[in-house]
Amino acid sequence: MQRQNDLIKKINDHYPKLSKGQKLLANYIIDHYEKAVFLTAARLGKIVGVSESTVVRFANELGYDGYPKLQRALEELVKNKLTSIQRVEVTSDRIDKTHILRYVLQSDSEKIKHTLEELSEEDFDKAVETILGAKNIYILGVRSCSSLAGFLGFYFNLVFDNVRLIQTNSPSEMFEHLYRIGPEDVIIGISFPRYSKTTLKAVEFSKSRGAQVIAITDSVLSPLIPYADRSLIARSDMASFVDSLVAPLSLINALIVAICIRKKDAVVDSLESLEKIWTEYQVYENDEEIAISFNSTFVESGL
Amino acid sequence: MQRQNDLIKKINDHYPKLSKGQKLLANYIIDHYEKAVFLTAARLGKIVGVSESTVVRFANELGYDGYPKLQRALEELVKNKLTSIQRVEVTSDRIDKTHILRYVLQSDSEKIKHTLEELSEEDFDKAVETILGAKNIYILGVRSCSSLAGFLGFYFNLVFDNVRLIQTNSPSEMFEHLYRIGPEDVIIGISFPRYSKTTLKAVEFSKSRGAQVIAITDSVLSPLIPYADRSLIARSDMASFVDSLVAPLSLINALIVAICIRKKDAVVDSLESLEKIWTEYQVYENDEEIAISFNSTFVESGL
Amino acid sequence: MQRQNDLIKKINDHYPKLSKGQKLLANYIIDHYEKAVFLTAARLGKIVGVSESTVVRFANELGYDGYPKLQRALEELVKNKLTSIQRVEVTSDRIDKTHILRYVLQSDSEKIKHTLEELSEEDFDKAVETILGAKNIYILGVRSCSSLAGFLGFYFNLVFDNVRLIQTNSPSEMFEHLYRIGPEDVIIGISFPRYSKTTLKAVEFSKSRGAQVIAITDSVLSPLIPYADRSLIARSDMASFVDSLVAPLSLINALIVAICIRKKDAVVDSLESLEKIWTEYQVYENDEEIAISFNSTFVESGL
Amino acid sequence: MQRQNDLIKKINDHYPKLSKGQKLLANYIIDHYEKAVFLTAARLGKIVGVSESTVVRFANELGYDGYPKLQRALEELVKNKLTSIQRVEVTSDRIDKTHILRYVLQSDSEKIKHTLEELSEEDFDKAVETILGAKNIYILGVRSCSSLAGFLGFYFNLVFDNVRLIQTNSPSEMFEHLYRIGPEDVIIGISFPRYSKTTLKAVEFSKSRGAQVIAITDSVLSPLIPYADRSLIARSDMASFVDSLVAPLSLINALIVAICIRKKDAVVDSLESLEKIWTEYQVYENDEEIAISFNSTFVESGL
Repeated sequence: MQRQNDLIKKINDHYPKLSKGQKLLANYIIDHYEKAVFLTAARLGKIVGVSESTVVRFANELGYDGYPKLQRALEELVKNKLTSIQRVEVTSDRIDKTHILRYVLQSDSEKIKHTLEELSEEDFDKAVETILGAKNIYILGVRSCSSLAGFLGFYFNLVFDNVRLIQTNSPSEMFEHLYRIGPEDVIIGISFPRYSKTTLKAVEFSKSRGAQVIAITDSVLSPLIPYADRSLIARSDMASFVDSLVAPLSLINALIVAICIRKKDAVVDSLESLEKIWTEYQVYENDEEIAISFNSTFVESGL
Repeated sequence: MQRQNDLIKKINDHYPKLSKGQKLLANYIIDHYEKAVFLTAARLGKIVGVSESTVVRFANELGYDGYPKLQRALEELVKNKLTSIQRVEVTSDRIDKTHILRYVLQSDSEKIKHTLEELSEEDFDKAVETILGAKNIYILGVRSCSSLAGFLGFYFNLVFDNVRLIQTNSPSEMFEHLYRIGPEDVIIGISFPRYSKTTLKAVEFSKSRGAQVIAITDSVLSPLIPYADRSLIARSDMASFVDSLVAPLSLINALIVAICIRKKDAVVDSLESLEKIWTEYQVYENDEEIAISFNSTFVESGL
Repeated sequence: MQRQNDLIKKINDHYPKLSKGQKLLANYIIDHYEKAVFLTAARLGKIVGVSESTVVRFANELGYDGYPKLQRALEELVKNKLTSIQRVEVTSDRIDKTHILRYVLQSDSEKIKHTLEELSEEDFDKAVETILGAKNIYILGVRSCSSLAGFLGFYFNLVFDNVRLIQTNSPSEMFEHLYRIGPEDVIIGISFPRYSKTTLKAVEFSKSRGAQVIAITDSVLSPLIPYADRSLIARSDMASFVDSLVAPLSLINALIVAICIRKKDAVVDSLESLEKIWTEYQVYENDEEIAISFNSTFVESGL
Repeated sequence: MQRQNDLIKKINDHYPKLSKGQKLLANYIIDHYEKAVFLTAARLGKIVGVSESTVVRFANELGYDGYPKLQRALEELVKNKLTSIQRVEVTSDRIDKTHILRYVLQSDSEKIKHTLEELSEEDFDKAVETILGAKNIYILGVRSCSSLAGFLGFYFNLVFDNVRLIQTNSPSEMFEHLYRIGPEDVIIGISFPRYSKTTLKAVEFSKSRGAQVIAITDSVLSPLIPYADRSLIARSDMASFVDSLVAPLSLINALIVAICIRKKDAVVDSLESLEKIWTEYQVYENDEEIAISFNSTFVESGL
């Protein structure tokens, strides 16, 4: 994985200092390296809109002795991607094995902070408005994202009567649930690397039917973005083996809280109806008493 | 439920008119009543940062004839918890509606920090050992906790061949999945307020069959604790309407990462087998491009 | 549960030594005890094809002091049904172990015939009309009945846009899906012995909210009947360990076919839309070619 | 798809004007085209009960220049099957709309009889032995077949501790559940037209790993057959829009009964354990009392 790390790393390291044209080249290579690998310097420049000499200077800037050397690094990148296997390795190499708990929790806590820095209240509020104004609300998340979709659907069902939750990774089944979507509806597509194709097709289709699309995803470079009317970006962790969905979950919490505050009366009504029904039908499924134990550790820790 | 209604209701009714210091007390009580219930007026004041007399005046302000009376109301509250409806009210009253996103994300980020402060690496490591040594691994989480259970099961299934995931809130069905559990097995019970009875019975039953019990729950006062061999405590939010499962999810991330690092070869094997199979059977379900975001924090963290 | 054990146990114990006519009586009682409970000795004999005195001797053979005593045991049996364990025993004793396949398939084929004899086209047509005129269609079936509910929902979703499928045996979750039901809606409750309480509560609740209730169940003595506007009775097998849901499934087939014929244009539209979408999004999930092998057994068997 | 359209279309268009004998031919072809494709005019006539010349006249009536031309159209039909849309049309045209219930139930009852005629007890018994001797039992059924798989899994879980139920139509997820299968295991693949590719890949993969494969499918021409060690053929209905899974369900009943009889002690043990647990944990989820109403219709109908 040496040279792929080289290229991506080099681009990352140098990005802030690149010229405008060189930034365009950098972006193109990252988004389309499996195409870029076949291009001459002249052709690449033509596609991106810069001169051939800009391309050569870009290669030098990154530390490559000429464009052919950059091409070889591209070839490695194309061949290797970061597979799941590499992500296991990366995780294993970078982490301090005696303090995994601390590493992960701190890391997750920071991801939420970064998400907050990058996400504007304005985008968030607009997404909320879109949801409130929709005729039908479709929620779509598959694989590890199906937990998030399920969580969102669970709470939205207490507020709205028009929620349709889709958690199938099978395209035919997804379309069977989705094909009636129209301009008055909204779809909330939740997708994180390695981006399910089913979710992508769903979102592309929904846009083609005129529906509003809200994307909850990890980056502005996510394949969902071109189809999204509103994008809510939450950090996940692409290097670690485990998809960290902590920041997305926090974002979804915020979404639910915002919706519930706007629809407070509807929520209270629903809950009151349910509580009455549970009482009448003798549905006691929660443990109402908690044991209070008075052992010494409590007193000591100042609880 | 009378007196609990009293305390929360009183706090809600009086909140706008409380002084700054009294608001701090009100917030602390709502967020940590299971701790507050054990505190003297002096200690409570110390923690919150106000004088003891402020605490006494606060009690009076709420209509209690002295702090001990407020404590008794707290005990009722602790026993009964907040109903869902009250939690909607509390959320709505306390939150700054123009900055919901910030409020929730900051709050979630802090919950993870608190969880880290209160959870020892040692307890965590022992839980990991227990899981690694088990014959069968049962994972149980229902309702909003089923998302967490599903997430944990999803990843454990790539490492182990003996995972049994239970997400049913129906006791008869739960027992149909669980009744063969024995002394060589472990059950990971995930339960947060309002504590499903099904999960509680499952954990009680498992202990009676000699299995190892790992509880992922919110407090040492959780009804799971008496049955647990290992307790992993993660903050949830008892005041907000939405169960914040962000800290529990981060804890589960850490668990998965720890297990994967210990069983790295098994994980890599599984992934290699799967990648080969997917290629051979032409299973292309992911969108192969990965997004790379270029902000400075990315570069800094050495990804 | 004493006396129920008595009757089944007595029948099981004495079975090998019973005369041919008495075996017929024994089988009839086990297969139709909810009818037998209402019959006089004369009537029972007539139905089975033996004399009244054979019936009396049968009662004595089993140790009952006269036929009325056997009737009382029958009443207990009817009230308590056969437990799962007894059903295993009964199945094991009565069945010809060398011809299980024939026994079960013939038995299932006959159950469908009996169902046809007892179910009127008129009741069936009225149920169809009720479904066609509903605002929302709720389908409810849990445990072994959830397969039937799922099958019905799968097809109804291609015809209607307002289908709500409930397959949870947890009452709280069931009510969360159901509580908005109203007078313009219909609920199709599918319930067979041992009759889930969740389904029963659902149906009772739905009626109390003024919804139309269609019951798909095994007998006019089913606990669903008092709440049902339309009852579609299909034979299941109360004696065998396995719930035979073959007749109910055939009935559900008929329901789907009837609905599809009435809504033919809507169905064709849906399918055309889906076929177009699957083609456009390259969804090829079915095997379109079948292998044709020309070996000799085909030709010989006259295929 | 030209010529298949031809044949079905021609049959549909001409049906009302066909003679009685020609209608029999038409029905036979639609219900058994995968057999009809191999038949000479003489043989077809013999099976249906008309003369060879009636068959020739039938071909001419449909616009075919001789019977061989009709055979070629049949081959196309067999290769392409009926699309869902055509099946809706066929169902609608052929069925007597005032007697749908009778038509479907009689038809289903007969399918079970035909299944019994064509399936040998010997094949059935060998399948049972294979299941009893397996280390792990995989059950796979997707789409409308997932109901059947779920039903089989539900009961097998009371007998065995090693059941793995797969109901996902997504190949990647299917492989994640299946990839550890080996020579000591068995997979029961349930597949009916239009034959899911996921099930096909699963079965192909399982065979390649040396596992025993039991196919529950509709025809010896099913794509599962080449990979199956044991084939249990049950009639479904390829012409009707609705997959009739009644015969397969009956076959699955027989399988469950056979297994339970062989493992009677294990089943009784499981049930006894569960009944004890349910009592101890106060799990009362079934309705133990049935209402007995004594209105006049009962007495009159001779119940």
